[in-house]
Amino acid sequence: MVRVAILGASGYTGGELLRIFTIHKHVEVTYATSREYAGKPVHYVHPHLRGYYRLNFSPINIDEIANKSDVVFLALPHGVSIKYVPELLEMGLKVVDLSAVFRLKNPKDYKLWYGYEHPYPDLLEKAVYGMPELHREELKNAFLIASPGCNATASLLALIPLVKEKLIDLDHIVVDVKAGSSEGGAKPAPGRIHSEKENSIRPYSVEGHRHVAEVEQELSKIAGKKMKVGMSPHAVSSVRGALATAYTWSIDESISEMVVWRAFAKSYAKEPFVRIVRGGLTRYPDTKFVVGSNYADVGFAIDKRVGRIISIAAIDNLMKGASGQAVQSFNIMMGFDEREGLEPPPLRP
Amino acid sequence: MVRVAILGASGYTGGELLRIFTIHKHVEVTYATSREYAGKPVHYVHPHLRGYYRLNFSPINIDEIANKSDVVFLALPHGVSIKYVPELLEMGLKVVDLSAVFRLKNPKDYKLWYGYEHPYPDLLEKAVYGMPELHREELKNAFLIASPGCNATASLLALIPLVKEKLIDLDHIVVDVKAGSSEGGAKPAPGRIHSEKENSIRPYSVEGHRHVAEVEQELSKIAGKKMKVGMSPHAVSSVRGALATAYTWSIDESISEMVVWRAFAKSYAKEPFVRIVRGGLTRYPDTKFVVGSNYADVGFAIDKRVGRIISIAAIDNLMKGASGQAVQSFNIMMGFDEREGLEPPPLRP
Amino acid sequence: MVRVAILGASGYTGGELLRIFTIHKHVEVTYATSREYAGKPVHYVHPHLRGYYRLNFSPINIDEIANKSDVVFLALPHGVSIKYVPELLEMGLKVVDLSAVFRLKNPKDYKLWYGYEHPYPDLLEKAVYGMPELHREELKNAFLIASPGCNATASLLALIPLVKEKLIDLDHIVVDVKAGSSEGGAKPAPGRIHSEKENSIRPYSVEGHRHVAEVEQELSKIAGKKMKVGMSPHAVSSVRGALATAYTWSIDESISEMVVWRAFAKSYAKEPFVRIVRGGLTRYPDTKFVVGSNYADVGFAIDKRVGRIISIAAIDNLMKGASGQAVQSFNIMMGFDEREGLEPPPLRP
Amino acid sequence: MVRVAILGASGYTGGELLRIFTIHKHVEVTYATSREYAGKPVHYVHPHLRGYYRLNFSPINIDEIANKSDVVFLALPHGVSIKYVPELLEMGLKVVDLSAVFRLKNPKDYKLWYGYEHPYPDLLEKAVYGMPELHREELKNAFLIASPGCNATASLLALIPLVKEKLIDLDHIVVDVKAGSSEGGAKPAPGRIHSEKENSIRPYSVEGHRHVAEVEQELSKIAGKKMKVGMSPHAVSSVRGALATAYTWSIDESISEMVVWRAFAKSYAKEPFVRIVRGGLTRYPDTKFVVGSNYADVGFAIDKRVGRIISIAAIDNLMKGASGQAVQSFNIMMGFDEREGLEPPPLRP
Repeated sequence: MVRVAILGASGYTGGELLRIFTIHKHVEVTYATSREYAGKPVHYVHPHLRGYYRLNFSPINIDEIANKSDVVFLALPHGVSIKYVPELLEMGLKVVDLSAVFRLKNPKDYKLWYGYEHPYPDLLEKAVYGMPELHREELKNAFLIASPGCNATASLLALIPLVKEKLIDLDHIVVDVKAGSSEGGAKPAPGRIHSEKENSIRPYSVEGHRHVAEVEQELSKIAGKKMKVGMSPHAVSSVRGALATAYTWSIDESISEMVVWRAFAKSYAKEPFVRIVRGGLTRYPDTKFVVGSNYADVGFAIDKRVGRIISIAAIDNLMKGASGQAVQSFNIMMGFDEREGLEPPPLRP
Repeated sequence: MVRVAILGASGYTGGELLRIFTIHKHVEVTYATSREYAGKPVHYVHPHLRGYYRLNFSPINIDEIANKSDVVFLALPHGVSIKYVPELLEMGLKVVDLSAVFRLKNPKDYKLWYGYEHPYPDLLEKAVYGMPELHREELKNAFLIASPGCNATASLLALIPLVKEKLIDLDHIVVDVKAGSSEGGAKPAPGRIHSEKENSIRPYSVEGHRHVAEVEQELSKIAGKKMKVGMSPHAVSSVRGALATAYTWSIDESISEMVVWRAFAKSYAKEPFVRIVRGGLTRYPDTKFVVGSNYADVGFAIDKRVGRIISIAAIDNLMKGASGQAVQSFNIMMGFDEREGLEPPPLRP
Repeated sequence: MVRVAILGASGYTGGELLRIFTIHKHVEVTYATSREYAGKPVHYVHPHLRGYYRLNFSPINIDEIANKSDVVFLALPHGVSIKYVPELLEMGLKVVDLSAVFRLKNPKDYKLWYGYEHPYPDLLEKAVYGMPELHREELKNAFLIASPGCNATASLLALIPLVKEKLIDLDHIVVDVKAGSSEGGAKPAPGRIHSEKENSIRPYSVEGHRHVAEVEQELSKIAGKKMKVGMSPHAVSSVRGALATAYTWSIDESISEMVVWRAFAKSYAKEPFVRIVRGGLTRYPDTKFVVGSNYADVGFAIDKRVGRIISIAAIDNLMKGASGQAVQSFNIMMGFDEREGLEPPPLRP
Repeated sequence: MVRVAILGASGYTGGELLRIFTIHKHVEVTYATSREYAGKPVHYVHPHLRGYYRLNFSPINIDEIANKSDVVFLALPHGVSIKYVPELLEMGLKVVDLSAVFRLKNPKDYKLWYGYEHPYPDLLEKAVYGMPELHREELKNAFLIASPGCNATASLLALIPLVKEKLIDLDHIVVDVKAGSSEGGAKPAPGRIHSEKENSIRPYSVEGHRHVAEVEQELSKIAGKKMKVGMSPHAVSSVRGALATAYTWSIDESISEMVVWRAFAKSYAKEPFVRIVRGGLTRYPDTKFVVGSNYADVGFAIDKRVGRIISIAAIDNLMKGASGQAVQSFNIMMGFDEREGLEPPPLRP
């Protein structure tokens, strides 16, 4: 059994890790931290897990973590993990960080997008961006995984096949993301209460979301040239789910469905957690059908009249968009079956 | 008092007309039709209106309508109004049609977008597209108003200032629309039940929605050249509300907020039902803040890094997107105060 | 024009007062207070009201209020109004308080239910409990109105006819209330965020809600004897709406529908804001059909097999359950048409 | 491996059986029927299960079912299973029926509650009411399991400890049930579309729901005397979840929390799928915390002032209220670990 510590275990992504690990054959959660709820049992904050854990939240104590665990998942608010990761690595632990702190390769990007000088540029080089569809081989030898952002994951999965197969005009790409309220986490704030969000369709960070940095970094690598992408997220009144609709212009105006289909199949046919959607009662991916699971459902449409290819990816923002993908990458790093702990299907309706 | 008949009064847009007219000073609803509920009182189907009307639904009888009414609103399923409009006009009645049957000027467009040969090309010329922001003068002399579609209204209101002031590249325009479940009307269907739509984010008609035809027609007139627009709607789990996010590329890469602001002000500063959103706790238009009203809240953002202008319009799909706008146009046609019946503010939360 | 000041105008009930007064013929809002948003325009917090007011929030200044207004509405958090009401009354202003501070007649009840010694027992006697269905005559001469609680309003309206006509066993009455998230107000708290409340059915104060005190006070007066009522509220994932289902045992086991119907008609047939629901596509009151309005829809069922009468009242918790009822009582106090400002129908869907 | 056939596999309870069996170690689903979708793959109707089954829907063919399966689950509309069950039993198959057709022991109750003469009174005797908390021993030898209704399950689990330990007045029991929209199944109907149910709180069958018959049958057995119970369900705008609030009067007016707690512990401490809720951030059971799982969360409150005991049970109506409980009973009948296939925790948020 691998002993796992979860830092920031009282939030939503921490709760999802705890939920996944209840059925993971090779993991025992030995440590779960929460500043606010230290001393309380796990189910005090996560009532759905009542009966699954005999574990109380602890404050963060690095020595104890080193004693009690082999791998550490950090599900802390952005910017906080930077305080702990270097020390945890030095003590020989493997680390999976769910924040943005180690996702970008270029230290300058932290200045630009996050407003601070990154103190560990060397770690940026060593960290592996935890999207198995792009970096499976590197993940096998990773010791520091930087797990991708939810909006970035959906956007990348929609765009990868089109960029890889050079089907689109790289100068005119926009991604419209719609996401549920769990994306904002469990912390209360005025605009986040139920009566404010229910029945609301609210654009935010319209002029460019921070996750664009990850998307451009990964797509530019694939394209072999520096790319720019526009991304505008919207909060809708779902709870779980993020859907990216990527609008692109086709290079070949008379492109056929088959060509695009083959591009998707080439990228994803062997992927255990990407499902290409065609046919059925619902023609396109819908977040409804991935809720609670690590699946990304992807699909596309061609608007021949205008020359557009629209590609779509639907994920559960807390799973493939956060904790599920983190466990998938962890499984690869540890040499486990990639699906371990992630087998149960989505929940519908 | 103007005597008004509503054809198709048991559906949502018919119900909204009935709701608006309860407080309209110059209108008496004298006739309301429903095939399914003929003989039943209005509140049998519209329980919220209990106590407001002593009126039973009738079947459609043209002679009776001509006897009892001066103006006829048609809130019928698409394609049905074509059966009644010519006769109603001949009998000297004024007509406000909420369907698409008289919106397009070019008869060929009906073949292309709706799949049928339009039998009254002459009426297409005479009908006025009922968007006051574009056709207020013509509406004053109208006798046949073709009230715009909801997705088209939101898309047009987002794009008009940018096209009018020649700020954007006309070859790369896409509109992503998100709309609530009331847009589909009151008829049941498998994918429309609560358990299927709640917590769902579902793209549909991704490759191009029929309302594109109206949008291109009106924008092309403004631009002075044939334009193409990509539009992809998404059903989200709101009840009321449609939000259009228009993605465009700026011609001037260093365009300032002030220039775009002036474009919006020029188009909308005097409009009674368009509000330009800047500042406040929420920075951009949100459908939540127009629910139940005829307002369109519009706003924009500039993504300088990528060279994009994103413009946004939020409406209540049943009001500015249907019945509210129809009454606004009717008020203009009849010489009433344009705001009559539409004064009460939106409902929040 | 009556000049009105609203204290606590940035919350939901304050916002509703502002919304109602936009169409009230005899009211001008001259003062609106908010500690947090002092100096900001009203639409900064209430974006739906953009364009309706040229008014900034002020801090509470009693002298200014006395200068600028004739009637003061207090929509403050519970317990705060006690600081201002006596002084406002002394300055000759009329007061409508939406909190519980002046609802109970017996000072001891404040100790029991709210945990404090009431400092103004004399004002408790003079205050009129602002439910027009019970105290219309007293309201005509009122200068201090204590507007009822939302759960209390729904519970009372369900029970009044049964108690008045002596149809039920007074020793076995329970009321199950279900209410939407707006009932909790606009302040954020951990359990109130969208992702926690959506898809939740959550009992609270199960062992007896504070509003029971009002319900027992008013029903006991009607019954002519001290009554006890059990009340248990539940938070469901609506935004607006409170539905009270009152479970009672019939004294006459073979009671007929007609007898109960007459009891309801006797109590409510002349009431402008109570609608008795019978028949239609939906058989019973549903909060959906009163949203945004001051209506209470009431109805009942007889479970002959068990000997129960179930009576039901549906209200919009922010309207008949708070601001709407406050304006209705205010209209009576001022000698206006009781319906003024409250004419627009509910919003559906 | 046990070969399982699912009749009526395109509905929600059929879909849940398919979902559960994806991770059940001892089950292979070999046959899934749907009249409407015969010939289509399972994921055509259940897109969330894409990738899990290589199985097409079949029409119902009894011989084929007998050839291909050992146990048959019937998830058919009420009244339909009666056509197939006798024949399936004769062919030596074991049967789990999710409808009400074999739940009641007294044939006369079918006349009273369902309006028909039951054609197989002998089978009523042999069928085991599939609630493990009441009939675990009989289930071990069952061949025909009548799986309980969702409202009945929640109501029973709330009341069993109080009746068993003789704590309450048996003449004054009412249960108020609140349930989500999935309870109505996947079939469309006018009142069931999203825009009609969202933000609605709608009482139905207020004068007594059919599930009362099961509740009274089982409680009467425990009490040793014929009992009557009032039950009134309400549809709220959740998707999954049913919460029963049982209102009872205590025999001992000064009853302590400890006594009630012991009653609950005595009934449920050893039950694998009943969790007694005390403490935590949320004090009472909430459907939110059992979604997707087979758990029933139960709890209670004492209203000393009035002499009431309120007991509460929260379930997922499709799991403990239908398919989950059916699999739990099936596991007992087959001698498997009762938890098999039902281990994954609930999904939150």
